[in-house]
Amino acid sequence: MKKWVYLFNEGNANMRELLGGKGANLAEMTNLGLPIPDGFTITTEACMDYFNYNNKIREEILEQAFSSLAWLETKQNKKFGDLENPLLVSVRSGARASMPGMMDTILNLGLNDKTVLGLAKKTNNKRFAYDSYRRFIQMFSDVVMGLEKSKFEAVLTKIKESHGYTYDYELTSDDLEYVVKTFKEFYKENLKTDFPQDPKEQLVLAIEAVFKSWNNPRAIYYRHLNDIPSDWGTAVNVQAMVFGNMGETSGTGVAFSRNPATGAKELYGEYLINAQGEDVVAGIRTPSPISKLKEDLPKCYEDFKRIVNILENHYRDMQDMEFTIENAKLYFLQTRNGKRTAQAALEIACDMVDEGMITKDEALLRVEAKSLDQLLHPKFDANSLKNKECIGTGLPASPGAATGKVYFTAAKAKEMHKKKEHVVLVRMETSPEDIEGMHIAEGTLTAHGGMTSHAAVVARGMGTTCVCGCKDVVIDEEKNVMYLGGHTINEGDYISLDGTSGKIYLGKIDTLPTTIDGNFKRILEWADERRTLKVKANADTPTDAKTAVGFGAEGIGLCRSEHMFFAPDRIFEIRKMILARNEEERKEPLSKLLQFQKADYKAIYKEMKGLPVNVRLIDPPLHEFLPHDGMEEFAKVMHRDLEEITDYCDSLKEFNPMMGHRGCRLCITFPDIARMQARAIMEAAIEASAEEGIKITPEIMVPLVDDVKELIYVKNVCVDEINKVFAEKNVTIDYKIGTMIETPRAALLADEIAKEAMYFSFGTNDLTQMTFGLSRDDASKFLGDYYSKNIYESDPFAKLDQKGVGKLIENAYRLGKSVNKDMEMGICGEHGGEPSSIEFVDQVGLTYVSCSPYRVPIARLAAAQAAIKNNK
Amino acid sequence: MKKWVYLFNEGNANMRELLGGKGANLAEMTNLGLPIPDGFTITTEACMDYFNYNNKIREEILEQAFSSLAWLETKQNKKFGDLENPLLVSVRSGARASMPGMMDTILNLGLNDKTVLGLAKKTNNKRFAYDSYRRFIQMFSDVVMGLEKSKFEAVLTKIKESHGYTYDYELTSDDLEYVVKTFKEFYKENLKTDFPQDPKEQLVLAIEAVFKSWNNPRAIYYRHLNDIPSDWGTAVNVQAMVFGNMGETSGTGVAFSRNPATGAKELYGEYLINAQGEDVVAGIRTPSPISKLKEDLPKCYEDFKRIVNILENHYRDMQDMEFTIENAKLYFLQTRNGKRTAQAALEIACDMVDEGMITKDEALLRVEAKSLDQLLHPKFDANSLKNKECIGTGLPASPGAATGKVYFTAAKAKEMHKKKEHVVLVRMETSPEDIEGMHIAEGTLTAHGGMTSHAAVVARGMGTTCVCGCKDVVIDEEKNVMYLGGHTINEGDYISLDGTSGKIYLGKIDTLPTTIDGNFKRILEWADERRTLKVKANADTPTDAKTAVGFGAEGIGLCRSEHMFFAPDRIFEIRKMILARNEEERKEPLSKLLQFQKADYKAIYKEMKGLPVNVRLIDPPLHEFLPHDGMEEFAKVMHRDLEEITDYCDSLKEFNPMMGHRGCRLCITFPDIARMQARAIMEAAIEASAEEGIKITPEIMVPLVDDVKELIYVKNVCVDEINKVFAEKNVTIDYKIGTMIETPRAALLADEIAKEAMYFSFGTNDLTQMTFGLSRDDASKFLGDYYSKNIYESDPFAKLDQKGVGKLIENAYRLGKSVNKDMEMGICGEHGGEPSSIEFVDQVGLTYVSCSPYRVPIARLAAAQAAIKNNK
Repeated sequence: MKKWVYLFNEGNANMRELLGGKGANLAEMTNLGLPIPDGFTITTEACMDYFNYNNKIREEILEQAFSSLAWLETKQNKKFGDLENPLLVSVRSGARASMPGMMDTILNLGLNDKTVLGLAKKTNNKRFAYDSYRRFIQMFSDVVMGLEKSKFEAVLTKIKESHGYTYDYELTSDDLEYVVKTFKEFYKENLKTDFPQDPKEQLVLAIEAVFKSWNNPRAIYYRHLNDIPSDWGTAVNVQAMVFGNMGETSGTGVAFSRNPATGAKELYGEYLINAQGEDVVAGIRTPSPISKLKEDLPKCYEDFKRIVNILENHYRDMQDMEFTIENAKLYFLQTRNGKRTAQAALEIACDMVDEGMITKDEALLRVEAKSLDQLLHPKFDANSLKNKECIGTGLPASPGAATGKVYFTAAKAKEMHKKKEHVVLVRMETSPEDIEGMHIAEGTLTAHGGMTSHAAVVARGMGTTCVCGCKDVVIDEEKNVMYLGGHTINEGDYISLDGTSGKIYLGKIDTLPTTIDGNFKRILEWADERRTLKVKANADTPTDAKTAVGFGAEGIGLCRSEHMFFAPDRIFEIRKMILARNEEERKEPLSKLLQFQKADYKAIYKEMKGLPVNVRLIDPPLHEFLPHDGMEEFAKVMHRDLEEITDYCDSLKEFNPMMGHRGCRLCITFPDIARMQARAIMEAAIEASAEEGIKITPEIMVPLVDDVKELIYVKNVCVDEINKVFAEKNVTIDYKIGTMIETPRAALLADEIAKEAMYFSFGTNDLTQMTFGLSRDDASKFLGDYYSKNIYESDPFAKLDQKGVGKLIENAYRLGKSVNKDMEMGICGEHGGEPSSIEFVDQVGLTYVSCSPYRVPIARLAAAQAAIKNNK
Repeated sequence: MKKWVYLFNEGNANMRELLGGKGANLAEMTNLGLPIPDGFTITTEACMDYFNYNNKIREEILEQAFSSLAWLETKQNKKFGDLENPLLVSVRSGARASMPGMMDTILNLGLNDKTVLGLAKKTNNKRFAYDSYRRFIQMFSDVVMGLEKSKFEAVLTKIKESHGYTYDYELTSDDLEYVVKTFKEFYKENLKTDFPQDPKEQLVLAIEAVFKSWNNPRAIYYRHLNDIPSDWGTAVNVQAMVFGNMGETSGTGVAFSRNPATGAKELYGEYLINAQGEDVVAGIRTPSPISKLKEDLPKCYEDFKRIVNILENHYRDMQDMEFTIENAKLYFLQTRNGKRTAQAALEIACDMVDEGMITKDEALLRVEAKSLDQLLHPKFDANSLKNKECIGTGLPASPGAATGKVYFTAAKAKEMHKKKEHVVLVRMETSPEDIEGMHIAEGTLTAHGGMTSHAAVVARGMGTTCVCGCKDVVIDEEKNVMYLGGHTINEGDYISLDGTSGKIYLGKIDTLPTTIDGNFKRILEWADERRTLKVKANADTPTDAKTAVGFGAEGIGLCRSEHMFFAPDRIFEIRKMILARNEEERKEPLSKLLQFQKADYKAIYKEMKGLPVNVRLIDPPLHEFLPHDGMEEFAKVMHRDLEEITDYCDSLKEFNPMMGHRGCRLCITFPDIARMQARAIMEAAIEASAEEGIKITPEIMVPLVDDVKELIYVKNVCVDEINKVFAEKNVTIDYKIGTMIETPRAALLADEIAKEAMYFSFGTNDLTQMTFGLSRDDASKFLGDYYSKNIYESDPFAKLDQKGVGKLIENAYRLGKSVNKDMEMGICGEHGGEPSSIEFVDQVGLTYVSCSPYRVPIARLAAAQAAIKNNK
């Protein structure tokens, strides 16, 4: 029989795929002899089996679970459902990857109307026993039965009001007994059945609920955001309860072995006395910093410090831990490698290298490449910040600078984001339901919750700014206003958040880009030493080029020549060119465009100081350059007949513009455009080269090639013109003509094409569109359905589809190399700055990636990680 | 040194690639000892070398040509440019495939102001000599210098008018001498140079002009129409002249060994006494039938009959020949396998099998599959024909029935065709410039020209109706009217042509479809015995299904379920379904659609009597079903708010609908639609099966699959619903669920997909679009540029792109078979009825093609030809 259940002492940290992260680490800590309440783990395989077995738990899994439970009873010397000495357990999810708050947890399971009495008697603490029971009812109802926790909170509030209480702790043991009674009635009323009294039934239902929680909408959304496959499943950990809510020498908390926001080497965390774990995470009460534990319970603090040290040294990484103190005895409930801001990741990685704990390669792998994006986020512009009123301060939960309009619900924030507003989400506290709203917001502000509250953890994970626990914030949900620092802030008013200082400002503040220095610079230098893949940038203007070089780009891998066309003085000539009725009429606007293009390229060449610049010939369909309305005015400006011009513009509209008259197809119809561009590129290079005394080797790239004959045609047009330029200027310079591989056909026939191209640049955006038959502009309409039905795990336009599109790239690489083994090949789609895609192209053997300038540091690090993972 | 030039006695019929068809056959006939004027052929390789060598004739080619010319001088005992006994030659193009009239010919080359005197003296026929010289000047100016022949005709007409002549033959020898003088002056005036007097210079220029003519626009158009590759090139034949214009015992003509219109076994042709070849082909004078030669020159007629017999037996096919009689001596100038109507091809093929001349396999290869389309053209409806006035009769040049509006120029005909008019082109005679106009016209009527005139040959090749040589037709080009049978017919009036009888009717006549009988049926039966590929039809309605079965379809390979949705009663429910705000609201319209769909499928099943029917689930994007305007009315009918409905309709519009929310993506968003369709298909099958007592195995096809998970999802939805139907009806029947392979990704991952699909149907339309990144709806804007620049040879949506798309199909076939070796695979795109594509898929190993019902006979024959060619 397959083994579906493991006792903690049967596992270890390497079994994370089977036991989940939490289960594997509980096993590891048990084996290290640390104070871990006993328990067992039901495997992730059991979870997937549940889904594949028609959403049923296989009998043999339950048998193994109950036999482990029997072992636990013996070990704890308690009995499940026992009237005098009842065993209570927690049931918690634990996936392979940490997914904080995304799935479900049930504490105090095993309580019923009878065992609660036993617990009260045994602990001599009736209040504790009933408090535990009412919590259990709430959690069980929410997690297992889908009856929301907040509805019970409303019931609780009513009872408190009837007694004139404000806080939970004012409730007496009798009050809580009454709460339990009322909760059970509320349960029955809503669910038409009694609250289950059989602990075994409770356990089976709870296990099933945890399995199911793997596919709840917020878990799916989180997985999608974090690239976690849907077939991993979650394990279920069943563990003997220890209680932080047994009085003033009990408590519960979470801590990090180093500061997860800054990376500083300091114990960092918080705890609540007389509370259960959920109270800390939920952020309802604001906890004390861990340092205060020294005063409250000095022995526990010393133990705590010692164990944290053991754990960090054992795992060789910063740890994020949960602990509970029951009657002055310390227990650890969880440890894991702590999530951290990008800044902290850099600091910790470099510090650990300096401490001799890890190697440089390990350090490079410790910083999530994608997370560097956070550091490239703008900061407040000091000038703009001057005279701005700081109206309050909260906890600096996730660094960065955010400015936006205030909204009080995730739904409204999302709605306004769709209308292109920059929004700041303000909530009393956030819950997992707010995750999408937080994602699209510039920043999040909460009134409740500490540095480890939901809002803080999630925001740090996402790299968005967050200020939390600002107690002065008062929200009037009915009126849609908030009050802070004597100000009334209406929905839609601007505020600004500084996630590094925790300060909140009134109004809009301009932001500035950051620079790369300190450990950021150090890690990137290590990355540059390690990687073999070149990193270039997609840059269309001299400004872009400057930014790219500043971020370490080794050239421009894609200069979209037409992006410069939209400036007002140019668009007029472009339109004239488009409306020309023949080559003769195109001459005049083309000659003007020649001057514009030449000046642009020259400025770019000067900025790049001899680094390679790859200019793509005109690509978009011509109608993109035409005005959408105001045709009368347009006709007048163009000195053309309104009807004629309208008809012509209409005739340029296409059913499927992405597959229409664009790319090299334009140059085949209008070779004079290619001629103009080739001339501009070469004249610019020759002049910039002479003026700056640098060697420039221009690269001219032909887009959307399907057939080698297209490439030959356009190449011949360019070469003829270039030879004319050489003759006129009496000078010759080296240049390259290459092609995009961005249609499946080009990838399939790459050997033929390689005979005529000096380099390949994979345009993975279009290649993805065409391989899937999926329009990037239209896909958002239904991709949501694909995620929620677990058909796609990620957006193929964000993460390269290695299976399908990747197969074409590998094929084209192989075919191209068979013709020209020295050929340079790279990618220049959105994927060029996405780490998993970078790892893939490194593995295939491409020579470079080209991405937007702001992604260059990410790509540099990701390329190094790829080299390490691919054993280069 | 490469051999660029072959004497006729150095070649043979198998060297057609090198010598062109004309050159190879002249060589073959020379070797057979037939009366062929001596000459030599410059190879097709020399032509392609000319284009590749920067449009220059390589020196060694000219050297070889002149050394062959020297041989010819010796053989003929004449000298090029000799004043007493000058050698004159013809210079004629000749490509690998016959391209009648598409390229250029020059006769009488070698004449100049001095040799003309020698010729006159030697032949004692001054009139003949000057007539030959003036023809040479005209042809040379036209072909080599681009100075149109018609301009010389105008000069000639003026001279005739000044003498009061009507016909050319009224011109005396002195008149012709004057004509030559005037022509030369006209030449100089227009070209600013003297007419070249050096025969060698004339020859070099003529050879170059023939090379160049390979890429003239009408040659490109013809190649495109007939799938002739642009890199074949044309050979050039230089041959000693024989003269049909030496008087009453001279003449020239063309003939076929069997009737090319009907296939009847009879000598068929026509000739002109005292004329040169061009006079017959150009159709200016109406010639005599070949039988009259028996009276005019009985000895020649006997020789002619004998040689025709030799040629047909030698080539084992119907021959198309050119001949010239010079002073009662017969010469053959050309033979080739004759072009013929589809009807004639069928008759000749069957007759030759019956005569024991060829095998059945050969017979199958003799009928061009595509040409069967002509026979499937409608005939006149006898009822509609009744009471229609026959206003004239011409020669029945190309069979079929045509009805349309009269236009007098190809340009106007094309313009009106674009406006969706059915047009009939009426011309005095046609020239190669009219070819596009003839192509789009329903039929062509000419006043001049015989059964072998340009119009007749071209129309038969295209399979369009043609009546020619109707001498009563008078066209007034200025007034845009024609007069015939006492009627004045204005531009835009309807006439009807019967290409089989040659009759011309006033007004519009309804047409009827044809039936398959006689030798047509016989050939198709032979084809059915021979082929291994199954032929199914794309059919969406019971009427389509009936037509398909009538044409021999073995099932429905593609039933586009949504094509039935456009009927007025259905479209209303479809729109209601689309506008539904949730699954609940969709229930009512879906339940109505269920009934419609069920009835449709039931009727189709009954029509197909147990043959397989493959229904594709809904495929097009939903906005295709919405009204384009009249939104106010629409909102009212739908009982919905105008603004809401307009917004919603707008939101459904897509940038690239072909790559948008369509195919299985719809069923993933709206599984209830798939559920409805699966239910309709199964209920219909169960009921039709019971009512008719036949076994039906429904096939349900999921479109636009990219990933096996999509297929699994939609399949599960269908299977669940089907199981419900089985339970409700208490009956179970076999069914299949398969998938389209129509995105490159599906083709790349076909092994995964094959695990879940019971069959593959390659949707080659979409697969072509996506492989090329080329929109079928937008491509026409620039494909013309691609043809004229020799980048594409054919439309990839008409002829399957074997290199690119074909590679994907082969890949998917291999991957699919690796998982399921018995899997059925076919194609259901436009290519399913296109012979070269059929040959390809037969070679790959697919099991069936599915095409439109009217193409089923073509596909049956093409499949047999494929089996023969692929040695099956």
